[in-house]
Amino acid sequence: MQTLDRGTGFIPTAVHHENIAGMEVILANGDVVRTGQFGMTTSPSAHLTKLTFGPSIDGLFLQSNLGIVTKMGINLTPQPQSYMSCAFDMPEFDDVATIVDVFGELRRNGTLPAMVYVFHINEWAAIFGKRSDWWKGEGPIPEWRTKEMQEELDVGIWSVKFGLYGPTGVIQAQYAEVQRVVAEKAPTGRLQQTMFSGKEGGLLEATSVPQPHGGIRVGVPSMWSIPMVNFYNAKEDSIGAHGAYSPIVPLEGKVMLDWARAAKKVYESQGFDLLGDFFMHDRFALFVCMLCFDKTSAEQRKGVDKVFHELFAEGSKRGFAKYRAHIKHMGKEKPSPPLNSLCKETQAKLFTYLPLADQNAELFDFNDHAYRRFVETLKVSSIHLRQFHLS
Amino acid sequence: MQTLDRGTGFIPTAVHHENIAGMEVILANGDVVRTGQFGMTTSPSAHLTKLTFGPSIDGLFLQSNLGIVTKMGINLTPQPQSYMSCAFDMPEFDDVATIVDVFGELRRNGTLPAMVYVFHINEWAAIFGKRSDWWKGEGPIPEWRTKEMQEELDVGIWSVKFGLYGPTGVIQAQYAEVQRVVAEKAPTGRLQQTMFSGKEGGLLEATSVPQPHGGIRVGVPSMWSIPMVNFYNAKEDSIGAHGAYSPIVPLEGKVMLDWARAAKKVYESQGFDLLGDFFMHDRFALFVCMLCFDKTSAEQRKGVDKVFHELFAEGSKRGFAKYRAHIKHMGKEKPSPPLNSLCKETQAKLFTYLPLADQNAELFDFNDHAYRRFVETLKVSSIHLRQFHLS
Repeated sequence: MQTLDRGTGFIPTAVHHENIAGMEVILANGDVVRTGQFGMTTSPSAHLTKLTFGPSIDGLFLQSNLGIVTKMGINLTPQPQSYMSCAFDMPEFDDVATIVDVFGELRRNGTLPAMVYVFHINEWAAIFGKRSDWWKGEGPIPEWRTKEMQEELDVGIWSVKFGLYGPTGVIQAQYAEVQRVVAEKAPTGRLQQTMFSGKEGGLLEATSVPQPHGGIRVGVPSMWSIPMVNFYNAKEDSIGAHGAYSPIVPLEGKVMLDWARAAKKVYESQGFDLLGDFFMHDRFALFVCMLCFDKTSAEQRKGVDKVFHELFAEGSKRGFAKYRAHIKHMGKEKPSPPLNSLCKETQAKLFTYLPLADQNAELFDFNDHAYRRFVETLKVSSIHLRQFHLS
Repeated sequence: MQTLDRGTGFIPTAVHHENIAGMEVILANGDVVRTGQFGMTTSPSAHLTKLTFGPSIDGLFLQSNLGIVTKMGINLTPQPQSYMSCAFDMPEFDDVATIVDVFGELRRNGTLPAMVYVFHINEWAAIFGKRSDWWKGEGPIPEWRTKEMQEELDVGIWSVKFGLYGPTGVIQAQYAEVQRVVAEKAPTGRLQQTMFSGKEGGLLEATSVPQPHGGIRVGVPSMWSIPMVNFYNAKEDSIGAHGAYSPIVPLEGKVMLDWARAAKKVYESQGFDLLGDFFMHDRFALFVCMLCFDKTSAEQRKGVDKVFHELFAEGSKRGFAKYRAHIKHMGKEKPSPPLNSLCKETQAKLFTYLPLADQNAELFDFNDHAYRRFVETLKVSSIHLRQFHLS
C-alpha cells in the first residue's frame, strides 16, 4: 500500500487512498477478510462505496504491515468534457506566502476542487537539465543566476500548476473566479491556461493531451519528471538517485514562507540547491524536499544525508511530521508495555514480527506514544491469538 | 459516533465522518490515544488533516464500541459567496430511474460537488400534515389522490433538492450545465432555483436563509422535518415515532426503480404508504425507508414491524445492507472461533464485553463472516491484553 501515495497525486481522485472502496486482505493469522460492502458476497455496491456497517478497518492496511491487500476497488475520475491546464507564477521567493493564502482559499471555497501543485524554479530546471547546464560555479546557484534562469525557463521563482476537469462552462467559470481573485490579491503574478476538450462534443481522451499539460496531470502514468534525479550527476558514470524529506505543513502563508526559507538555508549549507515542491489540499500541504544526488559520489551521499537530518530537525522543531518515510530511517526500539507483560519465550518469538519504531514514528509522542503502543498491540494480538488458534 | 451520520448530511462537508481530522479516544484498556497529526503534541496540523504516518486507526471508532471518542477535529464548510437552492421534480413514479441516472452523472462529472437529495411525495406531504389531512379512506393513499396531492403540494412524485455553494459565477455555470442536461435527458421535469448571496459582496450568513431553503441545507440544525413522525397519529393521545430501513443502493436507475417499486408494495401490503427518500453520493445512494407510526397503537406497532422485516428481506435479496441499524434488531450470537480457544472462565468474563451480532451484521458473510471475526478479535484482544497489564 506504500505505493498508493497518500496525497501527492494529481486529478480529482488524487488522494488515492480516500477513493478506495472495498478491500480483500490476508491477515497475519492467515484469515482472509473483505472490508465495507465487499464483505457481503452478494452486494452490488462492493466497490461503489467505502461505507461500512460497524467499524471501518480499511485504514489499518494503509502504510502498515498488519495485512497484505490482495484485492481492492478504487473509484476513478471519469473522462471529462474538458480539461483546462492552468499555470500561475510569481517572481519573488517570498511570494510563496501569497500563493498559499490565495490558492488555499480557492481550494476551500469550491473554486478549485482538485489538488494545486506548487514548485520552486530549481525543481523545474532539474527536469530540463543537469545542474552543470545551469550553473558551473562552486556552491549553490546564486541569486543573480536564478533571476536569469527565470527568463530562460519562462517560470516564476514559484510556479503553480492546477487542472480544472469537468463540463466546459463550469471550468470557464472556475477560471474566471481565479482570474478575478489573483488580479486583486496577487497582482504581480501571471495566470495562463490551455483548454483541451473532447472531439465533436464527446469526452476528452486523456492520452490526447500533450506534455507538459498531459501525463500524470490527466491520470496517464509518466516518467516525464524523472530526469530530475540526474541533476547533480557530474561524471560519465554518475548514477542519479533521490531521497526526500516530506513534511505535512499547515496551509498558512507565513508558516510556509518560514519553512521554505529554513529549508533553503539547510540545502545551501551543504552546497546543494533547494529542490522543493508542494501539493496543496484544502487545509494542509505535503511539502516534498527532493534530495537528488549522484550515488557514486561519497561526498554527495554524505552531504545529502546531512541535509536530510537537518531538514528533519528543522521540521520537527516546527511540529511537522513526514507523511511517508524511507526504510533507512527506521531503527529498533525497546519493546513497549504490552510485550513486557508476556513471558520471555513469547516475547522473543513475537519480537521478530514487531513493527520497528522509526525516527518519524517517534514524533507521535502524545501520552508516551499511545498511538504506537496501540498499533503494536494490534500486531502482537493478531499473532498471540493465532497461537490460541493453533493450540 | 452513531450521531455523526455517515452520509445523510447536507452541505459540501455532508459526509461528516470523512471530514474528521484527529481524534482523542479512550480505549477499552483505559489507555488514551490520539490519531493522525493530533498524536504529535506540537503539531500545528492536528486538526487540518486526517493523514497519518502508518496505519489509520480512526475508522475503528466509527459506529463501534472499541473506544470512546472524547475529542475530535472536524473540517467545516466555510461561508460561501452564494448559495443556490435548487429543485427539480418529475411527475411519474418510474421517473426515479431517470433522476438517478441523470443526477448520478452530474454528481460524478464535477457539476454537482455536493450530495443530491431525492424524496417521494408522501414524505413531503408528511411534513405538512397528518395522513388524515390528505386521505381519510381505508388503506394506502390511492393513485388518483396522489395525483391531486401533486397539484396541492406543487411537487413531483419524486422531487430532487440540491444546493450549490461557492463563488457566484461558478454556481451559475453549474446550474446552467444542469439546465442543459435535464432539458435533453429529462424533458418532463421541472427545474427551479433561488439564489442567496452575501450582503455587499461579503460572505453569506447561513442563518439569513429562510425555510424551505435554509436550516440543515445550509448547515443550521433544525427540527423542521420532524412533524413527519406524526403522520399516522389519529387519536388525541397518539404519540408519533419512527424507525427506518436504510439500505445502501447502487446509483443505477433501473436498480433504484426496481427497489422503489418493491418498497412501495411492502408498505402498502400493511396499509401504510411509501415514505422514502434517498441521498445521492457519486456512486451509491443511502435510501431511507421511513417507518413512521403511532406508538400508542398496537396495530401500527405490529404493522410497522412487519413492514421493516419485509423491507429487510426484499433488500437483502438484492444484496443491499443497511448503513445504520437500530439496537432493537440485534440479537445474541454464538461466540466465534477466537473465543472458543480460550478457557471457559475467561470466555465467560469476555462474553460480557463481546459485540453482539445483529441482523444486518449477519449479512457480511464473506469467508464465514471474516469481518465480524476480525472485529471481535480486536475487541477480545484489547480486553485480554488488559488482563496481562493488570497481572
